[in-house]
Amino acid sequence: MNLDMIRAAAIRIHGHARVTPLLHSPFLDEIAGKRILVKPECLQVTGSFKYRGGRSAVSSIHPEVRKKGVIAFSSGNHAQGVAQAARDFGVPAVIVMPSDAPRLKLENTRALGAEVVTYDRATEDRDAIGTALAEERGLTLIKPFDEPEVIAGQGTVGLEIAAQAKALGVTQAEVLIPCGGGGLTSGTAIALNAEAPGMRVRPVEPEGFDDVARSLAAGSIQRNPALTGSICDAIITPAPGQLTFPIMHALCGPGLAVPDADALRAMAHAFLRLKIVVEPGGAVALAAALFHARETEADTLIVVASGGNVDPTSFAQALDTL
Amino acid sequence: MNLDMIRAAAIRIHGHARVTPLLHSPFLDEIAGKRILVKPECLQVTGSFKYRGGRSAVSSIHPEVRKKGVIAFSSGNHAQGVAQAARDFGVPAVIVMPSDAPRLKLENTRALGAEVVTYDRATEDRDAIGTALAEERGLTLIKPFDEPEVIAGQGTVGLEIAAQAKALGVTQAEVLIPCGGGGLTSGTAIALNAEAPGMRVRPVEPEGFDDVARSLAAGSIQRNPALTGSICDAIITPAPGQLTFPIMHALCGPGLAVPDADALRAMAHAFLRLKIVVEPGGAVALAAALFHARETEADTLIVVASGGNVDPTSFAQALDTL
Repeated sequence: MNLDMIRAAAIRIHGHARVTPLLHSPFLDEIAGKRILVKPECLQVTGSFKYRGGRSAVSSIHPEVRKKGVIAFSSGNHAQGVAQAARDFGVPAVIVMPSDAPRLKLENTRALGAEVVTYDRATEDRDAIGTALAEERGLTLIKPFDEPEVIAGQGTVGLEIAAQAKALGVTQAEVLIPCGGGGLTSGTAIALNAEAPGMRVRPVEPEGFDDVARSLAAGSIQRNPALTGSICDAIITPAPGQLTFPIMHALCGPGLAVPDADALRAMAHAFLRLKIVVEPGGAVALAAALFHARETEADTLIVVASGGNVDPTSFAQALDTL
Repeated sequence: MNLDMIRAAAIRIHGHARVTPLLHSPFLDEIAGKRILVKPECLQVTGSFKYRGGRSAVSSIHPEVRKKGVIAFSSGNHAQGVAQAARDFGVPAVIVMPSDAPRLKLENTRALGAEVVTYDRATEDRDAIGTALAEERGLTLIKPFDEPEVIAGQGTVGLEIAAQAKALGVTQAEVLIPCGGGGLTSGTAIALNAEAPGMRVRPVEPEGFDDVARSLAAGSIQRNPALTGSICDAIITPAPGQLTFPIMHALCGPGLAVPDADALRAMAHAFLRLKIVVEPGGAVALAAALFHARETEADTLIVVASGGNVDPTSFAQALDTL
């Protein structure tokens, strides 16, 4: 997993993934007491950065293999990213989702042309179902984060940040990234380490689900005690990945953790000042920048708003914090 | 008022105004039955395209005159655009607003460094107050739309659309634009007429406030019978401008009008599918594209979402339409 793979991924996704801008607002700078630049990956195709990794991975499969199709386990942003990437290439996508996943997510994934296979969380084994399907049909599994070509795709966020910050004259910064399994965080860290060595990546997680922060502090992979209980569902994973953790350990600064209430407030400020829609898990880095800036060192904080797939009710709840 | 002035404005705003992207979603295409590309000027500095015109106008004043300051009459997006542009140059901005303007708008304009002068709508004459202040202090008046350098700034939207659409292989399209006094519409029409002659601009207004559509049909300036009664306050003006109307008459296709309810539904779809925050007046062109596509001819509709300065309560009302 290296910079060349990220550069190659950038070429493969060019013209398909959007180059998201860097947004700013004097009102946000004032809250943080620092300069805040926000990269809105909620504006990415399918509403999150996951399309980058999906497109990178699907485009890296040999055409003769790819035509049989791909498969992913996900009820969320990764499912939509892979479904859209498969649709780009006109190949089948099978998405394995729990039968109790939100109806909107099931419908959206189907609308992108994917075949959705549901399973009962209580009685059925997701991996067994997926593996059987993959073998039977020759599908290629696209893992959500512990997969080099997925990490390479997410790392293109880092290439863009380096170039866009340089154009603004910014070379020294902390880069705050919402962190689940660590695909976006580790890929971006590799890109920035090479292209903008004055920048340091800081993973941000929901309070109580800070497996990455604890793993970085301990120097070994630590797990989350639970997988439910936060509104930031998109970035709750059992533990950092086998591939992503060593990269983060080598390249990232200490992790940060924010309470759900701060994620909601950050969503409201993104609405008010940047006019973007951010989901709770996608807002934790902005929350850290706005409300926990004292835990950072740099004068400039670059924040990734990683996704915007939030239902209207949760969004209205965020607006109520204003 | 010509293309060269728009090109010159583009140079003056470069690096200050954002080049907003062109967004799309297969879900929106399906609703319309056409290809929909959305230019989100809600992501522009100060949350609307008005910063382009403000920056263009303020940057065109001679430095010795500019240093005395600028003045604008506005309770809305033009006020913020001019205030930010004045702040860019470190010169004073006076904004004349009715004393009953929304508190948030008063506060935001002050927070951008402007001096806000309020007047009583019922008993005081806005123009008299403004003219007296301008003479007394040597302030330059920046009109909201009937001013060549403002039109030139707004026209940079057209230059960007031409280049971005070409990169996507799109040369034939109708370009739907929320229209108040016609600054954005006329400037964009001049730019596209030169740079993308296969495109035709269609102004879009709220139903019952379609002075531009009626003026275009009649071939002479028609007025709105009332100035209140629509949620699309940002684009309600008494009549098209003396400068903007002849340009629109020469270059634009027929106007479109949409009910407020459709603007709210368009805001909700922009939330759900594009992850952007659009205000009611900024959403009328998207509403026309999504819900009145039969009144258009081209296979591709390019839509400007012109602003995002909406209060949380109105936004929640839009989400309730989902």
